[in-house]
Amino acid sequence: MTSTHNAALASLRTLEMLETPAAVIDVPRMQQNIRRMQSRMDTLGVRFRPHVKTSKSVEVAQAQIDAGATGITVSTLKEAAHFFDHGVTDILYAVGMVASKLPAALALRRRGCDLKIITDSVASAQAIVAFGAEYGETFDVWIEIDTDGHRSGIRPGEDALIDVARVLHDGGAKLGGVMTHAGSSYDFDTPEALAAIAEQERAGCVLAATRLRDAGLPCPVVSVGSTPTALAAEHLEGVTEVRAGVYVFFDLVMHNVGVCTTDELALSVLTTVIGHQADKGWAIVDAGWMAMSRDRGTQKQKHDFGYGQVCRIDGSVVPGYVLSGANQEHGILSREGGADGDIVARFPIGTLLRILPNHACATGAQFPEYHAIDQDRDVATWPRLHGW
Amino acid sequence: MTSTHNAALASLRTLEMLETPAAVIDVPRMQQNIRRMQSRMDTLGVRFRPHVKTSKSVEVAQAQIDAGATGITVSTLKEAAHFFDHGVTDILYAVGMVASKLPAALALRRRGCDLKIITDSVASAQAIVAFGAEYGETFDVWIEIDTDGHRSGIRPGEDALIDVARVLHDGGAKLGGVMTHAGSSYDFDTPEALAAIAEQERAGCVLAATRLRDAGLPCPVVSVGSTPTALAAEHLEGVTEVRAGVYVFFDLVMHNVGVCTTDELALSVLTTVIGHQADKGWAIVDAGWMAMSRDRGTQKQKHDFGYGQVCRIDGSVVPGYVLSGANQEHGILSREGGADGDIVARFPIGTLLRILPNHACATGAQFPEYHAIDQDRDVATWPRLHGW
Repeated sequence: MTSTHNAALASLRTLEMLETPAAVIDVPRMQQNIRRMQSRMDTLGVRFRPHVKTSKSVEVAQAQIDAGATGITVSTLKEAAHFFDHGVTDILYAVGMVASKLPAALALRRRGCDLKIITDSVASAQAIVAFGAEYGETFDVWIEIDTDGHRSGIRPGEDALIDVARVLHDGGAKLGGVMTHAGSSYDFDTPEALAAIAEQERAGCVLAATRLRDAGLPCPVVSVGSTPTALAAEHLEGVTEVRAGVYVFFDLVMHNVGVCTTDELALSVLTTVIGHQADKGWAIVDAGWMAMSRDRGTQKQKHDFGYGQVCRIDGSVVPGYVLSGANQEHGILSREGGADGDIVARFPIGTLLRILPNHACATGAQFPEYHAIDQDRDVATWPRLHGW
Repeated sequence: MTSTHNAALASLRTLEMLETPAAVIDVPRMQQNIRRMQSRMDTLGVRFRPHVKTSKSVEVAQAQIDAGATGITVSTLKEAAHFFDHGVTDILYAVGMVASKLPAALALRRRGCDLKIITDSVASAQAIVAFGAEYGETFDVWIEIDTDGHRSGIRPGEDALIDVARVLHDGGAKLGGVMTHAGSSYDFDTPEALAAIAEQERAGCVLAATRLRDAGLPCPVVSVGSTPTALAAEHLEGVTEVRAGVYVFFDLVMHNVGVCTTDELALSVLTTVIGHQADKGWAIVDAGWMAMSRDRGTQKQKHDFGYGQVCRIDGSVVPGYVLSGANQEHGILSREGGADGDIVARFPIGTLLRILPNHACATGAQFPEYHAIDQDRDVATWPRLHGW
């Protein structure tokens, strides 16, 4: 055995050596999720621009790019700067631009970042072109389209669409395209309903692009997406790119939506049993809401998993056991449908477990780093971006 | 004007200069909350040991100590190390100890930290004394008492109380006392009910101490507390110290419990209006659940504030306007009880607002730092501990 080999061994860690709670990525599952989505996008004939707000991890984004992704989507300008600093140049900031954030966007473009920004109002479009004129910068601006009424955007048939586009185009901005996100797709759980909302998302965004082109305005990009619609769309005619985020880890909400199985979930929280209330059938673990997040996204779905599904340390599900309650650093583990009289023997103090989260984006955000385990169960540390 | 004065002016910032979203502490309100609690503890004749899990900020803890607090309570060993590194030595780690965390506790004690740990089981007590014997360390161990059934602890009358105490005492640990936390006090909202749960917490913990002493075992400390019970207790006979955390900032949950008014809330999230859906009466802001946290603690209380109460930038409440929805980086601001047709004029794009959170512990945790504003509205940056 060489000394190099010894050094490598010395740095290896296993899950059993981590302090709990800890965020764990199952890398083989993550790679499988990445391949599944990229292969689907390739088949549908569109580019794929993953939303890195889910992982906020350079290593995860690099795996998505290595598999064929074209650029990334971010939810904050701090993410944009972070990923640009790590070599990603094609970046869409997918939250409506306002005047106060234009200096940060300008700074990124001046450093060579091919940053795209979005707007859905004449007021913000005017601010963008005025600022661009003042600083001699041609911003690449996409118009946000509202295809399901869940949040921001201009509806495809509204007059405002042409108004905003003209302000941008006539004001010297680059009219880069249209984009939409049918976030209400999370509310459905049948293949038929998911296919319908995917088609609504596609058709609405293509209609907006068509209206712009019919008005003599450029619209090179037609960008749509959410994890459920990306996986449910029957075709994507007229669409040039898709965005999705949570598919990279999946989670219990997506399981309830019906787009993954629990053994495809790539993010979990490693936790230690620290006590019991035997008469109530409770085990107390050191993963509370600070670790799991306060997300209760499965509460109104067909299976309420509380604060998460319990798994053994090897990642296999322990059927029927969930985190039924959570305080800041305490989770209450119990059996669904009735107290387990053998809870102390089943989960003795010191037992290491892994908890599958309701919402991977929210749970990941509670941790400064991920512990990524490969096929051999060795652990690498992947930092995660925090804050704004 | 001296050059020193110029330098001081150059470093001053105001809220208008911050990037949003940002966590803002109103320092005069915080100091008032600290004075109110400390003065009450002084009157009740008990020591006060604030729980720093709420702020995870050295500056906030220092203000509590300056006002008279005796030591601190922490929820993780990382907090213990962080505050010890900043000069606090008397620290209670108030989550049940397990074998895997003993090396970190030992390391802190070896460095001079007067760390107290807790247990509620024979198994953990045995692990503590075995580890203590192996490393020649006398751990200061308190027994966790369950006075309201909401989480961990041994009920005051249980045989296990004496069993655990004997394992510790006979095994060479220092039996430091008993502690309890009546977390179910958050479920009440009348002075009578709060006084009743406070008395239940006090009486249960004192009973446990009495049983230990009657068995010939030492029990110097009797530690109780939660923000509602600390503020509602009519007397604290037999209690030696109180712990409370969220009182330092208060929040909308505490407002609904009835222990503070909204103009005592010291933590808010600064946000920018980034768009509208005028026909729905929505303003879209850049504080989504990533900023506010997913905590919906007011959902089942008498006033559901959604994801938070809207305030003007000066901190005054805008009555009837809340964050009614939240995505990761988008908040939906609307009027309670019916759409506001003037939403665009009332909150134009670019307007800065402050949102009061449901749960200060959860919202603070979303941010790497606080922006602390003093009486003159100057802004200082206070770092916040993140992770485990």
